[in-house]
Amino acid sequence: MTYDSIIIGMGIAGISAAVYAKRSGSNVLLLEKMRPGGIINTIDKIENYPGFKSITGPDLAFQLFDQVNALQVPYKMEEVINISLENDVKIVKTTCSEYRALNVLIATGRSPILLGLPNEEKLIGKGISTCALCDGYLYKGKEIAVVGGGNSALQEALYLSNIVNKIYLIHRRDQFRGDEELVSRVKEKENIEILYNSQVTELKENNDELKSIVINNEKELPVSAMFVYIGYAPKTEFAKELGITNPVGYIEVDENFETKVPGIYAAGDIIIKKVYQIVTAASEGATAAIRFSRKK
Amino acid sequence: MTYDSIIIGMGIAGISAAVYAKRSGSNVLLLEKMRPGGIINTIDKIENYPGFKSITGPDLAFQLFDQVNALQVPYKMEEVINISLENDVKIVKTTCSEYRALNVLIATGRSPILLGLPNEEKLIGKGISTCALCDGYLYKGKEIAVVGGGNSALQEALYLSNIVNKIYLIHRRDQFRGDEELVSRVKEKENIEILYNSQVTELKENNDELKSIVINNEKELPVSAMFVYIGYAPKTEFAKELGITNPVGYIEVDENFETKVPGIYAAGDIIIKKVYQIVTAASEGATAAIRFSRKK
Repeated sequence: MTYDSIIIGMGIAGISAAVYAKRSGSNVLLLEKMRPGGIINTIDKIENYPGFKSITGPDLAFQLFDQVNALQVPYKMEEVINISLENDVKIVKTTCSEYRALNVLIATGRSPILLGLPNEEKLIGKGISTCALCDGYLYKGKEIAVVGGGNSALQEALYLSNIVNKIYLIHRRDQFRGDEELVSRVKEKENIEILYNSQVTELKENNDELKSIVINNEKELPVSAMFVYIGYAPKTEFAKELGITNPVGYIEVDENFETKVPGIYAAGDIIIKKVYQIVTAASEGATAAIRFSRKK
Repeated sequence: MTYDSIIIGMGIAGISAAVYAKRSGSNVLLLEKMRPGGIINTIDKIENYPGFKSITGPDLAFQLFDQVNALQVPYKMEEVINISLENDVKIVKTTCSEYRALNVLIATGRSPILLGLPNEEKLIGKGISTCALCDGYLYKGKEIAVVGGGNSALQEALYLSNIVNKIYLIHRRDQFRGDEELVSRVKEKENIEILYNSQVTELKENNDELKSIVINNEKELPVSAMFVYIGYAPKTEFAKELGITNPVGYIEVDENFETKVPGIYAAGDIIIKKVYQIVTAASEGATAAIRFSRKK
């Protein structure tokens, strides 16, 4: 069979698209490799998504999943490894099977990036983390470092400050680039010490666990953990064959969120755009789905 | 004093913008002439806003209002009657006072339109309505008409079908233009009679109350009420002086939701665009606010 549309990714962009596609009567399939909600699952507190005064990421992820289930949108937990074309039909190959559709929406988001230090990857789960909500409790009462200067770093430092004993908030510039509200809350926290103009240059370990970090090649800070919030990278190797990604893997779309390949759409954090927010991703997914559902 | 920004309208676009502006540390003022939530208040059931499986319009309106209150965004319940310019400063005149700001976001939405029949305006509240949620219960057990063929008409006909005895669903074309899911639910309802290719040509009254409607100049249907869902009109007389509206009152904006007047933005149902949805309005408000908050 050939689906009207296959939506890849069950973050908010993909789920929003699925809600619109299904309600329009489309024959739609949702694919997700890991867990519904995507990167939202790693956010401690969301207070800027309209309609929720304050909600945890996992709670919003659950409510999104609940919404596709209420509409009985079919989904499969399979990782997409390739997309190819056969005239108007798109062949979506996963680790388990192969599906066909007239339209494909890529909404796979992006992942946090690390600093690129030699032993960093090896220490993931052993002191290095990109998810305060997942790993914060492991460091209760300890001294830790948070690296970054945007909203994610600030927000997660605030969250961690209630768990750990002390935080070094390490930022390479001389001022933060996050919301002023978050910046002032961080500055008021007695157990957050801010280190501006600072970069982590070395990770020291002991028995395969992070022991300390070195700042600007000179100052050593003993920390049990380092949480990294310095940015994100898209993962679009599976779409390489289509030629729709830029050199760093982001996808270029038009105002209807369609790529240069007709019938291939993209929405959310994976696309080249100005604003990467939960609400913008939700809107883009809906807009793309309205577009390809009307083509039927 | 001069505000960083004044946001006109407390629908979801304005509230979303207010959340982003306030969190960025802006000195922001929200203005609303009637009630927080705007047109959302008139929607019976919202099932396509990501994060809510199903929520009533008034409940979502309440949660949005709750969100601006939690952030302590200052607001005034005043109607804007004019916006003028004084170099970089915008003067926003209301029925009560006058405010100054560097940036103004117009998010005043639009209102349902009527059929334009001679005695229609006069019969509002006496049989003619554009809000099933507000007035539906008045016609419990009666026969009524719903006019329109899009999602609003379908959704509200479904809502009313559980209250009233019988509905004539009157549409001027030979098929509906709403979501297939809604179309099929309407068709399954035994107490909804669909009249395609039909237009209401006359309203007959008795003691200043609607008594019956005439279809295509020939068939008279005795109904106690007629709910009209045929479209919307923006109300932007107050912005006339700025020269930013098109002939029918919609506002033209660029990709940052800025109008041709620097520092004057618009978002939500008031702008010229392709998709008029709750989630798109929320996204536009956020995007505009991020833009003008960064200019500080």
